[in-house]
Amino acid sequence: MDFYELAGRDPEIRFSPYCWRVRMALAHKGVEANPIPWHFGENQLPDGLSAVPVLVDDGVVVADSTEIALHLEDRYQNGPSLFGGDGGEVHARFIAAWADTVLQPALLPALALPILAQVRPEAAPYYRESREARLGMSLEQAAQTTDETVESVRATLAPVRRVVQHSEFLGGAEPSYADYAVFGAFQWARCVGGPELLAEDDPVHAWRERMLDLFDGLAREAKTAH
Amino acid sequence: MDFYELAGRDPEIRFSPYCWRVRMALAHKGVEANPIPWHFGENQLPDGLSAVPVLVDDGVVVADSTEIALHLEDRYQNGPSLFGGDGGEVHARFIAAWADTVLQPALLPALALPILAQVRPEAAPYYRESREARLGMSLEQAAQTTDETVESVRATLAPVRRVVQHSEFLGGAEPSYADYAVFGAFQWARCVGGPELLAEDDPVHAWRERMLDLFDGLAREAKTAH
Repeated sequence: MDFYELAGRDPEIRFSPYCWRVRMALAHKGVEANPIPWHFGENQLPDGLSAVPVLVDDGVVVADSTEIALHLEDRYQNGPSLFGGDGGEVHARFIAAWADTVLQPALLPALALPILAQVRPEAAPYYRESREARLGMSLEQAAQTTDETVESVRATLAPVRRVVQHSEFLGGAEPSYADYAVFGAFQWARCVGGPELLAEDDPVHAWRERMLDLFDGLAREAKTAH
Repeated sequence: MDFYELAGRDPEIRFSPYCWRVRMALAHKGVEANPIPWHFGENQLPDGLSAVPVLVDDGVVVADSTEIALHLEDRYQNGPSLFGGDGGEVHARFIAAWADTVLQPALLPALALPILAQVRPEAAPYYRESREARLGMSLEQAAQTTDETVESVRATLAPVRRVVQHSEFLGGAEPSYADYAVFGAFQWARCVGGPELLAEDDPVHAWRERMLDLFDGLAREAKTAH
């Protein structure tokens, strides 16, 4: 199985939030995949795809992190469930969509400049232009608003906080794809050397520690830009 | 069982999003409760509580819509599950917190002035002052931004849309408390005569129709300010 994932200028730095969802899902299922680094602007993805993550499993090409998780759930039924049934699948879909449309955009201003340091020079002009259009300001201006971004991210995390005050994981007693969908955003921040996002007494902080501990510290041991 | 719920100047208009969550949860469980109208600023709630919904079930006072749903789930195990187990409970908690902190605040500017018409004169000064502080503008100014509010609400609904493109309800094949938590916001808008929020071809529109049909049209038949 081949797993194409976003790599930094340092190819050991893997920082995409979507690819981290898949990394964690693979570990959850106990499935080994061959990670293939891919960089912004490269063209060697299967089926003419233009974005990672992409999984190629026994000739089947699967794009999009949630689709990959659904594929793993369907194909590897021996491992623990990633979703916990029908109710769990809608839970994960909702939380993944929330992470895509609310959490990650809230975080982007603080990460856009650190990410630039991981983008290869040939892709840097495209990266800068597209992110500055999305942010409505320069990457350097966005970096100067980091304190406000951290405050905004903490407020945005209210629904996560409400759940992890009551249960160990967003999936309940055990981690699920819902946890990986949110955790990807934190690992994005961690791997590019972004700011600390959480106060130590925040229940979300304790949850993140539990996530970093999973699978023998898979995420904690990952190389970071710091 | 007594169910204290927010009533309008017309006491048949029941418009609180939180109380609608409970109304739907009671119907889901097939439990009859005696609805007691309560108005902003009144003081006759049990246990010195100052906000509805409040349920008094065989002498047990339960406040907060999610706590009431958990109470109903625990106490009335014959009816269909409101949550669908541990995974469903975290799903509902997350979605309820998202509705509280993201969806309803996004909607408030368009509803704040229509709600004023449902607030009794003696409570109107408090209502106006507290909502204008929250909105950062007058109720009348907020009402003038309704077109932008509708656009913003539609964007905010992205995670709901992502789920109901794939399943009938947020809870999966059957409605759950997660559905009621989000639907409360739509019923809030509907009962006070707020603007139409959804395009007809939006999958969320079809979901809302299904919600309006539940329990013999309980929500569809409710009295509205229009």
